[in-house]
Amino acid sequence: MAEAETKRVKPEDAPYELIYWPKMPGRGEFIRLLFEEAGVSYMDTAKQESEAVPRVLDLVGADSKGDKNNAPVFACPALVHGDVTLSQTPNILLYLAPRLGLAPAEGNGVYQLNQIVLTILDFLSNEVHETHHPVAVSAYYDDQKPEAKKRAKSFTGERLPKFLAYLQRVLDGEASGDGPWLHGGKLTYADLVLFQGIHGTEYAFPKTMKKMRESGKYDGVFKLFEAVKERPNISAYLASDRRAAYSEGIWRHYPELEEE
Amino acid sequence: MAEAETKRVKPEDAPYELIYWPKMPGRGEFIRLLFEEAGVSYMDTAKQESEAVPRVLDLVGADSKGDKNNAPVFACPALVHGDVTLSQTPNILLYLAPRLGLAPAEGNGVYQLNQIVLTILDFLSNEVHETHHPVAVSAYYDDQKPEAKKRAKSFTGERLPKFLAYLQRVLDGEASGDGPWLHGGKLTYADLVLFQGIHGTEYAFPKTMKKMRESGKYDGVFKLFEAVKERPNISAYLASDRRAAYSEGIWRHYPELEEE
Repeated sequence: MAEAETKRVKPEDAPYELIYWPKMPGRGEFIRLLFEEAGVSYMDTAKQESEAVPRVLDLVGADSKGDKNNAPVFACPALVHGDVTLSQTPNILLYLAPRLGLAPAEGNGVYQLNQIVLTILDFLSNEVHETHHPVAVSAYYDDQKPEAKKRAKSFTGERLPKFLAYLQRVLDGEASGDGPWLHGGKLTYADLVLFQGIHGTEYAFPKTMKKMRESGKYDGVFKLFEAVKERPNISAYLASDRRAAYSEGIWRHYPELEEE
Repeated sequence: MAEAETKRVKPEDAPYELIYWPKMPGRGEFIRLLFEEAGVSYMDTAKQESEAVPRVLDLVGADSKGDKNNAPVFACPALVHGDVTLSQTPNILLYLAPRLGLAPAEGNGVYQLNQIVLTILDFLSNEVHETHHPVAVSAYYDDQKPEAKKRAKSFTGERLPKFLAYLQRVLDGEASGDGPWLHGGKLTYADLVLFQGIHGTEYAFPKTMKKMRESGKYDGVFKLFEAVKERPNISAYLASDRRAAYSEGIWRHYPELEEE
C-alpha cells in the first residue's frame, strides 16, 4: 500500500499533453509557445502522424460525455494533465501560465492578464478567422468570397487599427511597468499570445501589417513582438521542425482580401 | 494613524460597480445575474440616467491608459471593485463567481466552469451577434441584410443544434453531478450564464428555439433554464424594473432572419 503510494505520480508532476489538429499552428500554437518559453516538455498529439486526427475526433466526438471530473470537450485545443482535461484556449492558458511561471500564482494580476489575452484572441484569432468565414464556418471559403472581402475590409481598415491602438495604450499605461512587456514589467503569457497573434496576422495580411508597422503609431507593439521573437527558447522553437507552417487554419493568406 | 487604518475599507469589502451601456441587457446581464442570485448589492451605472453613457465613454476613451494596477479597458462591461478594474465578460465572471459563492474558491473546478462559460458565450452571445453583423460591426444591420440572412441560416440550422447537443452531453455526463446543473451537482455561475444565453436567443430566434425545445433532444438544457428562472432571487429580478428590455444589443429580433 505504502509502496503503491510512493509510486503514484502527483497530479502536478503528471506530463502535459496537448491535443490539436496536425499540420497547422492554429489555436494550439498559443499553448505550445508557453511550454517552449518555459522549457517544459509536453506531448503534442499533432506531431503523432496517423494518431493525430483520431485523437482529436475521439475527444470531440458526438458521443463523448467526459468523465467524473471533466465535462466533454466541444473543440480542440485541449490539454490533458493528470486527471484534468480542459478545453478553450484562454482557459488552458490560464491554467498553465501560473504553473509555468508565466503569470502570478497569487493576487489579481492573473485577471489583468486574462483580460488582455481575451482581447488579443478576440481580434488576432477569432476576428481574423471571421475574415475568411463570415457567413458559415462549415462552408468553403470559395463559397463566401464576396462576403469575406467585405469583412476583411472592415477588419483591416477599422478593427485592426483600433485594436493596435488599444494595445499601444496598454503598453503606454503604468500597469505595464518597465521594459517591452504588457503587464508588470515582466514577460508573461500575454506577451507570448500577442506574439503569435501578430505573427499570424502578418502572414494573413502582410501589406496591411507592413503599413501598420511603418505608421510608427504602434511601435511598442512591434517592439514587444521582436522582443519575444528574440527570446532564446522561442527563437530556437521557431527554427525547429516543431513549428508548423501556416495552412488552412485561422491565419490564411488570400491576397484578394487585401486588395484596394 | 491607527484610526485611519480602521476606517479604511478592506479591498474585499469595497462596493461592486458594474459599468455598462444603458437600456439593454447585453453582456452586462451575465454579470447582473450573479449579483442578483447571490443577493449582493451592486452599483449599476446603466441605471444612472444621464451619467450612464459618459461613464462608459470615459472608461473606454481613446486616451485612457488605465492606472498603476489596471490596464485600460477596451470595451464594456467593466467591473470596478476597490482598486481593481476589470473588463471582458468571462474574466469578470471568473473574478466574481468564487467571491459570490457561485464557483469553487479552490481546486480545478473553476477551470471546468470557465471552459463551459466560454463555450456558452461563444455561441449564445458572440455568434448570435454575428448573425446580424456578419460583415462589419460598425455598419448598420440594414447595410448587411443579405449577408445576415446567410449567417443566420448557418447559425440556426447548424451551429445552434450542434451547440445544444454539446450542452446536453455536458448535462448527461458524470461531472455534472445530480440535479439540473452543469457542474458538480450544484448551481454555479455557468448555469446563470446559460440561462441568459437561452433567454436572449429565444428572443432573437423564437421560431427556431421553439422547434429546438419541442424536438425533445435537449430536454436537460431547457429544464436547467426553467430551474434557474424559478430561483426566488432570479424570478424577483426578472419581474423588477432592474431587468431591461431587449433592444439594439446582442439579441435582436429580426423576423426575416428566421424565414425559411
